[in-house]
Amino acid sequence: MKVIEQTARTPSQNSFLDFLFGRPLSSEEDRAERVGPAAGIPIFGLDALSSAAYGPEAALTILIPLGLAGVVYIVPISLTIIVLLSIVYFSYRQTIAAYPTGGGSYTVATQNLGEKAGLLAGTALMIDYILNVAVGISAGVGALVSAAPSLQPHTLSLCLGILLVLSLVNLRGLREAGVLLMAPTYVFVGCLGGMILLGLWKAIEHGGHPVPVVPPAKLGSAVAGVSLWLLIKAFASGCTAMTGVEAVSNGVQAFREPMVKNARATLTTIIAVLILLLAGIAYLCHAYGVGAAPPGQPGYQSVLSQLIAAVDGRGIFYFVSMVAILIVLALSANTSFADFPRLCRALAENGFLPWAFAIRGRRLVFSYGINVLAILSGILLIVFQGVTDKLIPLFAVGAFLAFTLSQAGMVMHWKKSSQSGARFSMFINGLGATATGLTLCVVIIAKFTEGAWITVIAIPVLIMLMMKVHRHYQTVQSEIACPQPANLKNIEQPIVVLPLQGWNRIAEKALRFAYTLSTEVHVIHIAPEDDPDKPNTKELLGVWKEYVEKPARQAGYPPPELVVVRSPYRLVLAPIYRHVLEIQRKAPDRLVTVLVPELVERHWIYYFLHNQRATALKLILYVKGSGRIVVVNIPWYVSA
Amino acid sequence: MKVIEQTARTPSQNSFLDFLFGRPLSSEEDRAERVGPAAGIPIFGLDALSSAAYGPEAALTILIPLGLAGVVYIVPISLTIIVLLSIVYFSYRQTIAAYPTGGGSYTVATQNLGEKAGLLAGTALMIDYILNVAVGISAGVGALVSAAPSLQPHTLSLCLGILLVLSLVNLRGLREAGVLLMAPTYVFVGCLGGMILLGLWKAIEHGGHPVPVVPPAKLGSAVAGVSLWLLIKAFASGCTAMTGVEAVSNGVQAFREPMVKNARATLTTIIAVLILLLAGIAYLCHAYGVGAAPPGQPGYQSVLSQLIAAVDGRGIFYFVSMVAILIVLALSANTSFADFPRLCRALAENGFLPWAFAIRGRRLVFSYGINVLAILSGILLIVFQGVTDKLIPLFAVGAFLAFTLSQAGMVMHWKKSSQSGARFSMFINGLGATATGLTLCVVIIAKFTEGAWITVIAIPVLIMLMMKVHRHYQTVQSEIACPQPANLKNIEQPIVVLPLQGWNRIAEKALRFAYTLSTEVHVIHIAPEDDPDKPNTKELLGVWKEYVEKPARQAGYPPPELVVVRSPYRLVLAPIYRHVLEIQRKAPDRLVTVLVPELVERHWIYYFLHNQRATALKLILYVKGSGRIVVVNIPWYVSA
Repeated sequence: MKVIEQTARTPSQNSFLDFLFGRPLSSEEDRAERVGPAAGIPIFGLDALSSAAYGPEAALTILIPLGLAGVVYIVPISLTIIVLLSIVYFSYRQTIAAYPTGGGSYTVATQNLGEKAGLLAGTALMIDYILNVAVGISAGVGALVSAAPSLQPHTLSLCLGILLVLSLVNLRGLREAGVLLMAPTYVFVGCLGGMILLGLWKAIEHGGHPVPVVPPAKLGSAVAGVSLWLLIKAFASGCTAMTGVEAVSNGVQAFREPMVKNARATLTTIIAVLILLLAGIAYLCHAYGVGAAPPGQPGYQSVLSQLIAAVDGRGIFYFVSMVAILIVLALSANTSFADFPRLCRALAENGFLPWAFAIRGRRLVFSYGINVLAILSGILLIVFQGVTDKLIPLFAVGAFLAFTLSQAGMVMHWKKSSQSGARFSMFINGLGATATGLTLCVVIIAKFTEGAWITVIAIPVLIMLMMKVHRHYQTVQSEIACPQPANLKNIEQPIVVLPLQGWNRIAEKALRFAYTLSTEVHVIHIAPEDDPDKPNTKELLGVWKEYVEKPARQAGYPPPELVVVRSPYRLVLAPIYRHVLEIQRKAPDRLVTVLVPELVERHWIYYFLHNQRATALKLILYVKGSGRIVVVNIPWYVSA
Repeated sequence: MKVIEQTARTPSQNSFLDFLFGRPLSSEEDRAERVGPAAGIPIFGLDALSSAAYGPEAALTILIPLGLAGVVYIVPISLTIIVLLSIVYFSYRQTIAAYPTGGGSYTVATQNLGEKAGLLAGTALMIDYILNVAVGISAGVGALVSAAPSLQPHTLSLCLGILLVLSLVNLRGLREAGVLLMAPTYVFVGCLGGMILLGLWKAIEHGGHPVPVVPPAKLGSAVAGVSLWLLIKAFASGCTAMTGVEAVSNGVQAFREPMVKNARATLTTIIAVLILLLAGIAYLCHAYGVGAAPPGQPGYQSVLSQLIAAVDGRGIFYFVSMVAILIVLALSANTSFADFPRLCRALAENGFLPWAFAIRGRRLVFSYGINVLAILSGILLIVFQGVTDKLIPLFAVGAFLAFTLSQAGMVMHWKKSSQSGARFSMFINGLGATATGLTLCVVIIAKFTEGAWITVIAIPVLIMLMMKVHRHYQTVQSEIACPQPANLKNIEQPIVVLPLQGWNRIAEKALRFAYTLSTEVHVIHIAPEDDPDKPNTKELLGVWKEYVEKPARQAGYPPPELVVVRSPYRLVLAPIYRHVLEIQRKAPDRLVTVLVPELVERHWIYYFLHNQRATALKLILYVKGSGRIVVVNIPWYVSA
């Protein structure tokens, strides 16, 4: 066995692509591209953290009919969400340890609950990732245009512009995306944290009743009494604050060693910060009497905007905070860019998505997934015209479905485990599964008519498609499997068919090649015009004996058979194709090789000067042909 | 010499295409598609005849500053144009007899004045034909929307709709187009003729001063004195009435036998009718005091509209006439559809345009030319938003340039001829050349700044392009010419390169084919991932000895050489291509054949499931390869 091993050279340079995407990275540079907690928090936590900016507001919006009295309820609702969040945190902490190779909901559900449950979790997450990109960008742009109303007509262009920048940055690779995200994330956390500390201090100073620097918007009087259904709906809306929590567990492999420790530290920090933000915001809303303003009305102010103004007035701090919120909202889409491609890769490696999703691009990222995510969320943005309100109800269903399946999977995992503490872990995950499962039901019921139904329909459709892809791959796999030695006996010469337009050097080259393949050569010439004495036909018949038959005999080959087909309807391809099929019919056990002479031009523009019959012939022989037809290109390079 | 002659079957049926374009016609049905004078007049004369509807108006518009006094000058101007028309008529009569195979300006100029003059005439005509389509359609639609102002916003859509219908009708073939055009043409001629006769009778009855039934628009008082320059400009504008006269001489071959006689009868009728219409309109304008109204002002009425109303009032006759004018204007574009493809064919047969222009489509028309004409005039309509006024100044330059070159060519033709009467014929054509040449100068000078400069620039640019095409064809021609017997001696086995992704039945099939070609087979396997123990690579190396080397030796072939290339940058195509080039470099006198195994799916949608590396590899080998690389597709048909 003579096996030569080589290593391919570095790719050739292309300064434009290098500028846009960065220089290609070799697979060995993978480790250097991995991240620690400092960069991991922005990359995997932005989605979760930014939801502090819209979760409480979403809940307060539902409470508007209760007037000032409603603001009181934000505290218990937020506490419920924080408890849920803590349960989910402990569950995912366990998942990271149990699945250090990347334990997304898809993997956990597949391994413990079976393929179908895994697909359900995977699809739910895919949809949520796509929605997250659209929601994050549109929320950021929405905040921007409410600050600068003159940008309103450009909402969609701004959304698509941000999407393009995010895609490019992510195609450059994880680390560069992390560096870009770090500053705004920490400014955002710093501002909100500072606001909460200052507000807390003022509240304590004034015995729980601080005086707002800028008074918040007046809340209307109650138009409805409090009801359990209203509180449940407020809770369901507030749950959008929990989206994005699963990101870390999906991306464990993107962390540098020790992976599990780094991933856990990242998750802990993200959840801790998120809980502090949610709790602080809830308490301050209560203390300062800040409620949501009805969106879309003149002079609308977001809850955070009112809160910061109440605590510290509209100074520099206010503006820095608002800018940070805008940027972080827009960039929260980035979490999807980090995770969606990884999820698709896992699905592709199991044969549920095209292979291309599993191939890493020049910068070691799964470029195909990034592109597909960008295109799909771009379509969503265009269809919904970049308006957040219309997108929100579709959201969160996927996230909670994935949460539930992942926790349930972990319950099965611990059940099979004999590890010490497995029972306690099982209890934690069981609690998580129950809590997120109940929340899922609440979210679906509360938001069904407003748009959640789209997600509920999309999930089974996507699953069916993926099962179809899987079946197809399996069929092909079993069809081409060859678990036996090659059969190289009784290799017979093929029958060669050579269509010629006339006699020239391409024809000569093709004929030489024909005789390397076989001694049985059929030449077919089509006379497409009404006049059988057309120059080409006449010329070919004229030189045939002297130029072809004689030299063939002299070289010891049987001369080729010449078939001239008159074509009154001026068709060229159909007669050739029919001739090939006819030959094949007569010799059912032999391979038919069709030589297609073709001009290869140095400049693409010249292709218009020649008919593309060679290309069309190849195509038609492929589409209509069978396994026993092989097409050979005989290229003739035009030097001009 | 064993030559088998066959005749191809009729093409397969496609009911949708048949409905749209008509059933395919065999080349022998050509004669039945030819036309006599009755159908020939609408087909080749519509352009010329319809110009009676805008020529006089264009001249009168220039005379507006002279007020009522200006109307007097329409008679001498029209007389001058009629004289010019007569000269051109006699010239083209001679051309038809001298060039019965289709004596367009291009042919006549090429044969008598040389290639460059021919190209000049051909380009000028091509531009004029394209402009004629745009001008005709936009003038028709312009008249329509001035009658029904509510259609104004749909101007462009209406223009493009008519263009589409005309293209489809012409793709169905000449005869069907003629049938469609016949009725409106004869109604148009009948209406205008009737109006002239009635008006003449009334004028005679009233001693040259008839009383208008509906008084024409009042003409303003003179704001300028008459000047030679003004009269020249009016003449130049009026000359648009002569466009389209050369159509018959281009299309002699479309007439049924006796061709020359039929063509001449058609030309005579067209010119006679046109002269009568021009003379009648001029006289009646004078007698009734009808002048042009400034276009684009409220209550604008075209000259013909005023004239018919003055002669017979606004009754049924008025409306029938107006509708006929609208239709004929729009359909005058059709003359270009009859002639442009024929002109392009002549240019293509001489190698100045892509061959495709010389191929007749399913209905025996030159479909490629029709499509190109439709696309180019569609672009013109879109760029100029379907407004006639902006298009007119570009027009007529091409027509008069072609007239002049054609006449000048005929002068040279007669000079060489020893026929009796050649001197007189030469005088006629010389007179024509001088008259049209002078008119050309007048037209260019009078309209240069308004748009004629575009045509003046476009002509040399087009000529340069066509010369480039010609040079390229000649280079290719001389490169592939092979005026000697085929060299079939010392045909050596090629070196076969077979890229394999793994061991499967496609690989086995490719290997079998490889050994029919040569005993020297190089297998290359790319290990693109970081891990050299990737399943494919490991598996291939594992089975290689047993599944490939052993059976090859048993069948008496030297086993293939296996090269495994690790690809740290995950490139697959570049290493294969480099390997092929390396092999070629080592064996500079041998052919290298690359076998590309490829999955062929039954449904195109499944193509997304496989990487398209086979297609990309073929492309890259072609683009970067040399004449000694041949690519062979080994298709594997997926049955699912």
